[in-house]
Amino acid sequence: MTLKASPLAFVPFVSVDNMMRLVHHVGIAQFMADLATEIEADFARWELFDKTPRLASHSDVGVIELMPTSDGVQYAFKYVNGHPKNMQEGLQTVTAFGVLADVDTGYPKLFSEMTVLTALRTAAMSAVATKHLANPGANTMAMIGNGAQSEFQCIAQKAVNGVDTVRLYDVDPAATAKCAANLADAGLTIVRCDTPEDAIEGADIITTATADKNMQTILTDNMVGNGVHINAIGGDCPGKTELHGDIVARSSVFAEYLPQTRVEGELQQMDDDHPATELWQVITGAAKGRQSQPEITLFDGVGFAIEDFSALRYVHQKIQDTPFYIDIDLIADPDDPRDLFGMLKRAH
Amino acid sequence: MTLKASPLAFVPFVSVDNMMRLVHHVGIAQFMADLATEIEADFARWELFDKTPRLASHSDVGVIELMPTSDGVQYAFKYVNGHPKNMQEGLQTVTAFGVLADVDTGYPKLFSEMTVLTALRTAAMSAVATKHLANPGANTMAMIGNGAQSEFQCIAQKAVNGVDTVRLYDVDPAATAKCAANLADAGLTIVRCDTPEDAIEGADIITTATADKNMQTILTDNMVGNGVHINAIGGDCPGKTELHGDIVARSSVFAEYLPQTRVEGELQQMDDDHPATELWQVITGAAKGRQSQPEITLFDGVGFAIEDFSALRYVHQKIQDTPFYIDIDLIADPDDPRDLFGMLKRAH
Repeated sequence: MTLKASPLAFVPFVSVDNMMRLVHHVGIAQFMADLATEIEADFARWELFDKTPRLASHSDVGVIELMPTSDGVQYAFKYVNGHPKNMQEGLQTVTAFGVLADVDTGYPKLFSEMTVLTALRTAAMSAVATKHLANPGANTMAMIGNGAQSEFQCIAQKAVNGVDTVRLYDVDPAATAKCAANLADAGLTIVRCDTPEDAIEGADIITTATADKNMQTILTDNMVGNGVHINAIGGDCPGKTELHGDIVARSSVFAEYLPQTRVEGELQQMDDDHPATELWQVITGAAKGRQSQPEITLFDGVGFAIEDFSALRYVHQKIQDTPFYIDIDLIADPDDPRDLFGMLKRAH
Repeated sequence: MTLKASPLAFVPFVSVDNMMRLVHHVGIAQFMADLATEIEADFARWELFDKTPRLASHSDVGVIELMPTSDGVQYAFKYVNGHPKNMQEGLQTVTAFGVLADVDTGYPKLFSEMTVLTALRTAAMSAVATKHLANPGANTMAMIGNGAQSEFQCIAQKAVNGVDTVRLYDVDPAATAKCAANLADAGLTIVRCDTPEDAIEGADIITTATADKNMQTILTDNMVGNGVHINAIGGDCPGKTELHGDIVARSSVFAEYLPQTRVEGELQQMDDDHPATELWQVITGAAKGRQSQPEITLFDGVGFAIEDFSALRYVHQKIQDTPFYIDIDLIADPDDPRDLFGMLKRAH
């Protein structure tokens, strides 16, 4: 067969390999700072977006989710799974890929791996929340849970908010050792801690990113002092939380998209009308963020489709005129759009 | 960078080009007969599936939809757009791609074009409905609307139900000429008709597949005689129908998944409790199909996620040990699943 597909048939594909090349081409810290800027810009025009809680398919061992959104000009969705038991089988807990498409034609314009990209945007999102909610001068972060997300969180906080010290804790000391080794040349002061109490000592920011699919109590009420900002990242699906409810009760709670967070986040422990603010309102000035120094602020992060939209939009811009993608023949493009069958027939 | 991705990182990708090669390798008619068998088998175990209406993002000029489903062992979703105005711009009205994944791990196992595959499965679905609903011996079909779907419908009806004569009509005679030319060697008697009335003369089966996004009346009540089976395929989104409501009222109506069809199909013209039967119940014997020779049966087809699941499952089987796919590096697969950052860092 010598059929030649038209340019319209091709969609740029960014593989894992090319995503990593692109990240290093830009620089990891710069990439996350850029993502934070893009997410902040999209959150500032929040009301333009089609918003819907993700569409989840649950099984006994995990979940597969589709996360779509659109600003009326571009459309994006992400496929993402969450399978905590995968780790024991040598597989990723979370893998993801996504698509950016043109609303006017419905044609996809980017197909990309998003396992690496989600790790980057999740950290950028925490950094944006911290920027708007932590006390001024916050520069020490406790990082509780030193798994796949931990280094990204630390680097994003340095890049966006000037965090200079990270205090690492994990139930598995090998995870802490891995995290510390990976961050050795990141320009951060790294403190390896033996207990969560030790880790949060002197921390202005506490970020929790643990993976167990259970109601956990990573932090108990008496551990959290006044004035801290907490990013609770690991509690992100029904039945999976990290904080004792009393901490949530004492905090001012901020979320991405409340209809989703009340089901998936720390807020699932609270009444459906528990006070909480959507972060975009803090960014636009429509609502107040932190109102006093001693206040505890809690970003109950679960991940929302607009963050993926921002990330895919950014990657689409960045790959132009680079070698960090290949074109794949994803779209059937017959000469006469009514003649799909003729195209198939002539391919013989 | 010389990083070598592990086998787990790769997902087979079937491009448009390779899908067409695969279809010709199997044979178009055989491929559709096989798809009909797979769809019928999956409809027979309907109750095992996670079912949800598709998730649609509407704009002024079209719609982008995600259609997921799962049988608890495998998960599939399709991305599909519908942009009727695309045709005037030399683009496809409908383009699609999809993914088959493993429920146990959440890992994708097939990424495939689905523009061509959707055309094939849509025709196979009509043939399955016709097999279970048309009068015995039905062998003449009126094909109203001779666009991108028409030839597929004709060939599937021949392959599955022994239809030997097709009577073609389109408002645009050029479309009819194209359809007739494409079917010239299909082993069908082809009758080109100048009016819809002419086309349905003597037809046992009437299939409508028109593309305008409006409430159309392709068939009026007095055109439809007793005993026919109608496949109304083109009315497939809110505000888009093909039949006069009186025809729907006179017919026994069968649908794929009623919560979706009542919003998207011909049934959107009727009250929410208008009697209708899901086709899977006819296939399993749980409900009656046609009950008398003079009855008019109407398959109000809008397309449902399980048909895409069946098609992706079939393609996944068929590509094994063939050259009709390439492996793409879609999944990040670090040696230590907790060390995603280390993988990124070492890629530098």
